[in-house]
Amino acid sequence: MIITLKPGTPATEIEKMKNRLEELGVAVNIIQGTSYCVFGLVGDTTKIDPSVIQADRNVESLLRVQDPFKLANRLFHPEDTEILVNESKIGKDTMAIIAGTCSIESEEQILILSKQVKEMGASFLRGDVFKPRSLPYRTISEEEVIDILKLAKHNTGLPLVTEVMSARNIEETSQYADVFTIGSRNMQNFELLKEAGKSGKPVILKRGQSSTFQEFLMAAEYIMAEGNNNVILCERGIRTFETSTRSTFDVSSIPALKKMSHLPVIVDPSHASGAWWMVEPLSKAAAAAGADGLMIEVHNDPSNAKCDGEHSIRPETFGTLIKSLKEIAKINNKYI
Amino acid sequence: MIITLKPGTPATEIEKMKNRLEELGVAVNIIQGTSYCVFGLVGDTTKIDPSVIQADRNVESLLRVQDPFKLANRLFHPEDTEILVNESKIGKDTMAIIAGTCSIESEEQILILSKQVKEMGASFLRGDVFKPRSLPYRTISEEEVIDILKLAKHNTGLPLVTEVMSARNIEETSQYADVFTIGSRNMQNFELLKEAGKSGKPVILKRGQSSTFQEFLMAAEYIMAEGNNNVILCERGIRTFETSTRSTFDVSSIPALKKMSHLPVIVDPSHASGAWWMVEPLSKAAAAAGADGLMIEVHNDPSNAKCDGEHSIRPETFGTLIKSLKEIAKINNKYI
Amino acid sequence: MIITLKPGTPATEIEKMKNRLEELGVAVNIIQGTSYCVFGLVGDTTKIDPSVIQADRNVESLLRVQDPFKLANRLFHPEDTEILVNESKIGKDTMAIIAGTCSIESEEQILILSKQVKEMGASFLRGDVFKPRSLPYRTISEEEVIDILKLAKHNTGLPLVTEVMSARNIEETSQYADVFTIGSRNMQNFELLKEAGKSGKPVILKRGQSSTFQEFLMAAEYIMAEGNNNVILCERGIRTFETSTRSTFDVSSIPALKKMSHLPVIVDPSHASGAWWMVEPLSKAAAAAGADGLMIEVHNDPSNAKCDGEHSIRPETFGTLIKSLKEIAKINNKYI
Amino acid sequence: MIITLKPGTPATEIEKMKNRLEELGVAVNIIQGTSYCVFGLVGDTTKIDPSVIQADRNVESLLRVQDPFKLANRLFHPEDTEILVNESKIGKDTMAIIAGTCSIESEEQILILSKQVKEMGASFLRGDVFKPRSLPYRTISEEEVIDILKLAKHNTGLPLVTEVMSARNIEETSQYADVFTIGSRNMQNFELLKEAGKSGKPVILKRGQSSTFQEFLMAAEYIMAEGNNNVILCERGIRTFETSTRSTFDVSSIPALKKMSHLPVIVDPSHASGAWWMVEPLSKAAAAAGADGLMIEVHNDPSNAKCDGEHSIRPETFGTLIKSLKEIAKINNKYI
Repeated sequence: MIITLKPGTPATEIEKMKNRLEELGVAVNIIQGTSYCVFGLVGDTTKIDPSVIQADRNVESLLRVQDPFKLANRLFHPEDTEILVNESKIGKDTMAIIAGTCSIESEEQILILSKQVKEMGASFLRGDVFKPRSLPYRTISEEEVIDILKLAKHNTGLPLVTEVMSARNIEETSQYADVFTIGSRNMQNFELLKEAGKSGKPVILKRGQSSTFQEFLMAAEYIMAEGNNNVILCERGIRTFETSTRSTFDVSSIPALKKMSHLPVIVDPSHASGAWWMVEPLSKAAAAAGADGLMIEVHNDPSNAKCDGEHSIRPETFGTLIKSLKEIAKINNKYI
Repeated sequence: MIITLKPGTPATEIEKMKNRLEELGVAVNIIQGTSYCVFGLVGDTTKIDPSVIQADRNVESLLRVQDPFKLANRLFHPEDTEILVNESKIGKDTMAIIAGTCSIESEEQILILSKQVKEMGASFLRGDVFKPRSLPYRTISEEEVIDILKLAKHNTGLPLVTEVMSARNIEETSQYADVFTIGSRNMQNFELLKEAGKSGKPVILKRGQSSTFQEFLMAAEYIMAEGNNNVILCERGIRTFETSTRSTFDVSSIPALKKMSHLPVIVDPSHASGAWWMVEPLSKAAAAAGADGLMIEVHNDPSNAKCDGEHSIRPETFGTLIKSLKEIAKINNKYI
Repeated sequence: MIITLKPGTPATEIEKMKNRLEELGVAVNIIQGTSYCVFGLVGDTTKIDPSVIQADRNVESLLRVQDPFKLANRLFHPEDTEILVNESKIGKDTMAIIAGTCSIESEEQILILSKQVKEMGASFLRGDVFKPRSLPYRTISEEEVIDILKLAKHNTGLPLVTEVMSARNIEETSQYADVFTIGSRNMQNFELLKEAGKSGKPVILKRGQSSTFQEFLMAAEYIMAEGNNNVILCERGIRTFETSTRSTFDVSSIPALKKMSHLPVIVDPSHASGAWWMVEPLSKAAAAAGADGLMIEVHNDPSNAKCDGEHSIRPETFGTLIKSLKEIAKINNKYI
Repeated sequence: MIITLKPGTPATEIEKMKNRLEELGVAVNIIQGTSYCVFGLVGDTTKIDPSVIQADRNVESLLRVQDPFKLANRLFHPEDTEILVNESKIGKDTMAIIAGTCSIESEEQILILSKQVKEMGASFLRGDVFKPRSLPYRTISEEEVIDILKLAKHNTGLPLVTEVMSARNIEETSQYADVFTIGSRNMQNFELLKEAGKSGKPVILKRGQSSTFQEFLMAAEYIMAEGNNNVILCERGIRTFETSTRSTFDVSSIPALKKMSHLPVIVDPSHASGAWWMVEPLSKAAAAAGADGLMIEVHNDPSNAKCDGEHSIRPETFGTLIKSLKEIAKINNKYI
């Protein structure tokens, strides 16, 4: 951590600040520049709250040399993390395919769909019980949804991925869910992150729409701080000035996050683009950039889906896509 | 609502879609353009979910003519909303000053500070019990904080404004809090919005860091849909490419939101800028642009505050600022 | 084009505006909504300047149904455009590789490098004579650079791609340059666009750092309006809140632009990321998303390059990358 | 400047890099951290090109302690710059009002308008000869426009402010123009900046739509490097995700730029918002935040203006606004 003091800061104030920082357990190297006095802090600066330093009226600016997260940091864990859920894997040389639909309409629909996507190459089933929005999308009850998802999981033998939005959700779903998803709006819901950490189950953490890579990894750190290292980072688009797509899918997050962290990085091209015709090219792009997995919305009749039809693809399209993805993944020594 | 169909959409599909839309209770005007067939929908389109329309593979694009919110819409409520809390007001010809600190350290500190800011012109006290972050800022317990806030409220007679982050928080604080704040990260926490709506108490809703005006007002609509019209919109900066300030304070939100809605619009220059030396110019700018209020962090010793010292100002600075704000507000026929 | 009038606009004003619009050569359909009177314009609206309409105080808002560009619009030219330069192609089933360096240091260096990249699969040579910045990068004169580029072009037989920043540049380079590049900062330099249009040579137009797809295609339209249809769109990253990469490479621009337009879309992963270690994954992502070409900086000794070394890759890396790109392109039925 | 080396960089490489940096004329302080070796550079780092450092494969990251510009830097010129043009001033305790229209339609129109705005408080006349866009706005010739502007200048005695887009424009207008404006699209047109610098005339430099404060001041530095210190910075809105306004007017640029630089900072609320009803509140906000001036579009009949009518205000509105601005400016000890 580099702290620059205002020009003209009195020597006594410099001394006082130096002592204050040393009390926080770091060594302070002073560099006297032409205009500025600069402190170079050596030691564990992750426990220093920058805003407390910046509150000091003598401080001009504060820069970080090292990322503020430790457990998620590749610097301290050079090896890729691989996460095993039942017999399905994410990370290292596996590219995981998580498929399913938000629009759960009937038992028959989901049983057929889950069988199809499994046969085509999906290694995880996606199915949400709780919906973040209040519009009356569903024609069936939450209990029926749970029963359908349990049956689909049982029939396919695939682990079930489901979104949680509160500590209560975690409790309620823990009996049948294998992987929790934390949505982009909850990326900095620190209570929820901690609860997910305590659950011990693998967590797919989605990047907030306006979150930097560093903030994203800091959020992962909250989960890991509870002893849960099974965190999967998920890029799902960021908000930019371009509004012709729902959000801007940031493909560079894949190499960037993998450089900063050892955690697996997957992507959700469906929600990122909000457009069914973008799912195919964005999925391929993600695979080519080295993604460890993909989360894809598949629906038997998207035009008439109760929700998310606008970014869902048909099972046939999914099947063709997976074939291409297998070839692309192989180029990066990854396998579906 | 304007729906554009893909060129070459068969007449039977156009007819089918027209019927489907009419079943939703709107009249459909068809305009046959040179390249596109366009539907102009007349009636209450706020109940139509655009993504369900966009799921239809024949739909090229969807545009809104009218904002998707009703209760918060100035179109249907031309008069400015004025909110009365005990004897303090927000809206119309009042510019409300909400002052206080996040860094509650001792009873003496808060009692002195709250007395000072009241005398200088504050009409609301700000004090948070729950902290969104886990860093060990506080040296005193939550119970002590509550007791201190109650005492400060009692001594000054000013209404107390406090942040809530969950339904449980609403319950716990409802005995002593007069106004709830919903933070920017929770702007689209729909469960929380509904609970705040049910509480019946005035709610200060902070704009999400990457939320458009329309999304912001849609969030307000969720609170109002529960029968609670006492919503105060609060601009607190948006995320942009400029990173030398914590966020970009969007002063144009004041005239823009007031044109779209009848709700009062206040600003939080402290959190928007994240810099104490910006609080003064941004507060003045907000007042000049017609803001209905300001939320300002004041601390007796910002350099040594346990938190938020970097964007807190001293009581003396606050006093001088208020004098300027009174003059500026008067130019807009508003009074502190 | 959809024009919404303010509620309460008098009938005489509606009539006047209708006449004014009809004089511009479009038919006006009036839809009387519950709150708003809406005009649906049918005909060629590309000649209508929206800001002139919005100047009318009775106008509430203006929405476009159809993109404001015609020549670049896929609606009127469903077939992909293929551009042929000598024996090299861009577009349709060809993925063109444009390789070279900004850091031209000696004849020997460039002759070896250009030979290498050609053998590895490059079909165009990149070499800039004029530098947009004033820092004293170069150790050799502009004249020497020109001679070196001419020789490299002659020896390899590959077409030469060079950046132009003014009408004078176009004139000066027209004898030896085969393709002009217009940089992102000049994307809306309308004089330059027109001059490039008049030149008749193929033009690679780079997307401005904060330009929407629509603005990008409008800029292409300026070139095409001069009778030059050989425009190649180049994505090179947009500015977002994420600052750990130089810009955010928008891979979704590839499918989005190809849906809106028939023009070839290439990408520049070197300048987009500003980081040599990103060039490989981003190039692969672009190829997988269906790009019609790639512009890659290659340098024999990037660590000691006079400029652009931070995002240049070594010839060996380039060679390996091209092998992967060939496989990926093939999946999309494209060939290098 | 702080340079962080990759963990594991060999001692010989560290030594080599240290020598290379010292040759650039700076002293190198080495801080050996727990994970990283960090170089703290002392001396004039403004001549070091960061990208050349970053090209070195051993470099992990580069951070600036000091802003990369010198002449525009308040650190070296603590006093506010005041610019005098004939008898009109900008900077220090003067708030300059620059008024006029882009839509020059007739001699009579402009003579009346310029007389009106002068009487109301304008101290500079704005009038553009060259138009950046090609749409056939004008009904009169460029020569007529020049004659009208000369006459308006002569009659009012006010200095004339006009936009230049090329070196040729500078030459052509230098006889009658008193202040040059460089538009936001040309903010990084380095050739133009240098030519404007050589002209010796005061230059209003508009912030690029996606330019940071630092980039903005670096552009000013280019003008000043030619010996021309009369640079006026102009905020005119930045591009963000919010699209209901043309751009987001960044009011915090006023205190931020004034902290970083001694140059006057003015604003253009007309072009920033693109909406006539925003001009009034944004102008007041700018004055309250301490702006040194305002550039306002005034037109006698905005609804029928040939261009820019959508963000022009009527002379009567302008008159009322100036009265408010005088009161607000006075609070900041500034005078119109």
